[in-house]
Amino acid sequence: MEHSYIYVTIADAIASQIRSSVLQEGDRLPSIRALCSEYKISMNTAKRIYQELEANALIEVKPQSGYFVSNLFYAEVPIPEVSKPVLLANNKEPKEIIRKVYSNMGNRDFTLFSYSTLYDGFLPSSKMKKEIVAASRLLVDGGIEYDSVQGNLHLRRMIAHRAMTWGGTLKEEDIITTNGSMSAISLCMLALGKPGDTIAIESPCYPGIFQLAIDLGFKVLELPTDPITGIKVEALEEAVEYIDLCLLISNYNTPLGSCMPEENKRAIVALLDKHNIPLIEDDVYGDLYFGNHRPNCCKAFDKTGNVLWCSSVSKTLAPGYRVGWVCPGKYKDKILHQKLVHAISTPGLMQEAVASFMKSGNYDKHLRKLRQNLYSNYQKYLNTIITSFPIGTKVNRPQGGLSLWIEFDQRVQAMKLYDLAIAEKISIAPGRMFTVQEQFENCIRLCIGLPWSTEVEDKLVRIGELSKQLLQESR
Amino acid sequence: MEHSYIYVTIADAIASQIRSSVLQEGDRLPSIRALCSEYKISMNTAKRIYQELEANALIEVKPQSGYFVSNLFYAEVPIPEVSKPVLLANNKEPKEIIRKVYSNMGNRDFTLFSYSTLYDGFLPSSKMKKEIVAASRLLVDGGIEYDSVQGNLHLRRMIAHRAMTWGGTLKEEDIITTNGSMSAISLCMLALGKPGDTIAIESPCYPGIFQLAIDLGFKVLELPTDPITGIKVEALEEAVEYIDLCLLISNYNTPLGSCMPEENKRAIVALLDKHNIPLIEDDVYGDLYFGNHRPNCCKAFDKTGNVLWCSSVSKTLAPGYRVGWVCPGKYKDKILHQKLVHAISTPGLMQEAVASFMKSGNYDKHLRKLRQNLYSNYQKYLNTIITSFPIGTKVNRPQGGLSLWIEFDQRVQAMKLYDLAIAEKISIAPGRMFTVQEQFENCIRLCIGLPWSTEVEDKLVRIGELSKQLLQESR
Repeated sequence: MEHSYIYVTIADAIASQIRSSVLQEGDRLPSIRALCSEYKISMNTAKRIYQELEANALIEVKPQSGYFVSNLFYAEVPIPEVSKPVLLANNKEPKEIIRKVYSNMGNRDFTLFSYSTLYDGFLPSSKMKKEIVAASRLLVDGGIEYDSVQGNLHLRRMIAHRAMTWGGTLKEEDIITTNGSMSAISLCMLALGKPGDTIAIESPCYPGIFQLAIDLGFKVLELPTDPITGIKVEALEEAVEYIDLCLLISNYNTPLGSCMPEENKRAIVALLDKHNIPLIEDDVYGDLYFGNHRPNCCKAFDKTGNVLWCSSVSKTLAPGYRVGWVCPGKYKDKILHQKLVHAISTPGLMQEAVASFMKSGNYDKHLRKLRQNLYSNYQKYLNTIITSFPIGTKVNRPQGGLSLWIEFDQRVQAMKLYDLAIAEKISIAPGRMFTVQEQFENCIRLCIGLPWSTEVEDKLVRIGELSKQLLQESR
Repeated sequence: MEHSYIYVTIADAIASQIRSSVLQEGDRLPSIRALCSEYKISMNTAKRIYQELEANALIEVKPQSGYFVSNLFYAEVPIPEVSKPVLLANNKEPKEIIRKVYSNMGNRDFTLFSYSTLYDGFLPSSKMKKEIVAASRLLVDGGIEYDSVQGNLHLRRMIAHRAMTWGGTLKEEDIITTNGSMSAISLCMLALGKPGDTIAIESPCYPGIFQLAIDLGFKVLELPTDPITGIKVEALEEAVEYIDLCLLISNYNTPLGSCMPEENKRAIVALLDKHNIPLIEDDVYGDLYFGNHRPNCCKAFDKTGNVLWCSSVSKTLAPGYRVGWVCPGKYKDKILHQKLVHAISTPGLMQEAVASFMKSGNYDKHLRKLRQNLYSNYQKYLNTIITSFPIGTKVNRPQGGLSLWIEFDQRVQAMKLYDLAIAEKISIAPGRMFTVQEQFENCIRLCIGLPWSTEVEDKLVRIGELSKQLLQESR
């Protein structure tokens, strides 16, 4: 690997070309490969250069296309800081906030920016109805008898087959299907942790993961997390002596949208393996990349079976089917045991329908279209936020996934904003939900799973107005 | 309540009429109501008289018909004794046996007497395929979006409606749907227990329940259980000071087939409520009664919301759909929280299909036919066992459910029998599976979920021959 100054030097050079308008908005930049040969650098260094430029909102990646100079207007809106959680096990659960926010789940009288899920036109419901009918005919028993504990063979085969998209090599026997990804994570935690154990988690992170860990009696250690590159490797290195488990949403995590660079994934897998600490990897957003390539998974660098790779189709295809899975490496027997004990099996019919959709090539077609739509949605959301939210607001620039993470001026209390918005039937997720410490009180998460419409636009603008109102009142 | 001698006196009188052939095989006995008015006794006393006579295999109950004098040949085969577990928390899990037995789950090259499930003709797979297709059309989104955390409204409404069949009065908001009954029990244990807590359970009992409790760090206290009337109330009374939770399979439990009389249910509900110990009631076999009436549930006597009634359609309709539920009484918020955290939701499509099958009346039609078929199956299994198993074998006489519990002469080692049988592609469940103590080593469970055929008959006969062989070798 080159010395780090090379990547800084080249990134600075390109940045100054952009700032001096040598490169202009919309100009295409060389591909990663072209950059490598131009500067005689490695792929990783080339990627880091573009990550750095993206992080500064100077360039952006477009699906199936390449890297382009951003609208510089965006560049003036900074991204949120690296989080700075207190480095002590903590469990100040935001129970009441979670209860409040989740009480509107599925209630379509509200404009639901609060849940990390896809709605309406983003889900191929007619096609999947056909798959269900076909699957109920294809399965000899129509799925009425118990599926095997390990799960539907066709689905496991397709998941194994698709592993090549993220740098993995899996066999069907390496996979156990589950009732969605959270259930996969629950089985991993039940199998590998015991009360009193400490689990390291990104800060901020999905509240269900904190709740699960705390309910099982674990101590939760939140670690500093970068909105671009995810959990800080140095922080994990310092904490590694004190932890028993680690859970990471490696690609486009929620709510921060960060995606760990390959070298961080590789380093963390090696670090945790060395200390014999299992890594539960939640990769539920990995297929929702805006760029040209799916990011790799930590599992791709796992030589010893220490990574439990969990995913599902809940964020891409059919949340209601509850089809997820885990590739548990050397912990396979433990996870099989937990699945048998807690659930016996999961519905074979839903698994067969998903497998068949994958096998036909329709899943890939659907994903290609979905990624383009989501990227376009993301741009519209971002543009509206940048133009209508108060000056001083910071916004992340995820390269995939469903989450926009907004950091307001310290004086904007997200819970007050929540109350004002909910009174107007707009549901947002306050930042305090995503931590078990007293932080992110001026942050919110907005999900881009609602297809764009004038109503969505109006409601986003309204959130901006309400936050400006709070800011004025605080003066 | 009358003094107990009344019930003994009357039962003895009827028994002697049967033994002296005043009453002959196949003769119809008076109904419970007629018995009450004939002897001026209460309903409960009349029921106890018939229970006592059934326990001695002198009479039997026929579905939708009444009480009849048994084939006296049966009467010579005794029923197993009341279990006598050591009254100390114990956790000698039969992990290796369970692993062995479950490794053949779903493998139809074997004759599977080992799993408590229904096969082939007992499950209405064509009808349910149609329900699935209809449900995928009926649901606006085809079930592709998240179902609500609490579960499908139509299903909850039907479950509430059906509560009248077991003496309950439920409303749709009292019910939370789950991924099968084991998942309901798992949520209850996760919500109400903590490591170190002691849970009282019947002995013997379904191994998944022991595994779950031990995995969660509970101490397991097995209590003496009668093959006719279930857990001994006196034993629970003595243990009540030392326990934190209680779990009972109240109706036709597996493997013993016992069904708690109403007065025991009432007494236990009151006892546990007084001591503020939650009762998790697993009623998964309650609809599979051989007689005229469905037995009540403990939940029917629950005035304070202390009983968490769990059930499913896995033993009656569609094991593979994983549709179960819990009516958690005053613990509703805790269970909702656990479901959200461990699973988010369960597939709406399967729930809608089951709800629609219930609503059309087809579920009741199916259950009526299923009960008759199972009763007929039970008689054939029992007859074959009695005629071909060695003298000294004891067999239970369940009045419903799927389990035959066979107690061999002490010299027949069930694990040896298992090995001999599995070599001939016959799978049985050794008694040691159903306890976490060193007991039941000469017992096996045979499930009656395989429809009768000459193959089933031959394999049962073969189990008898193998057990005779073991008996001879031991001499």
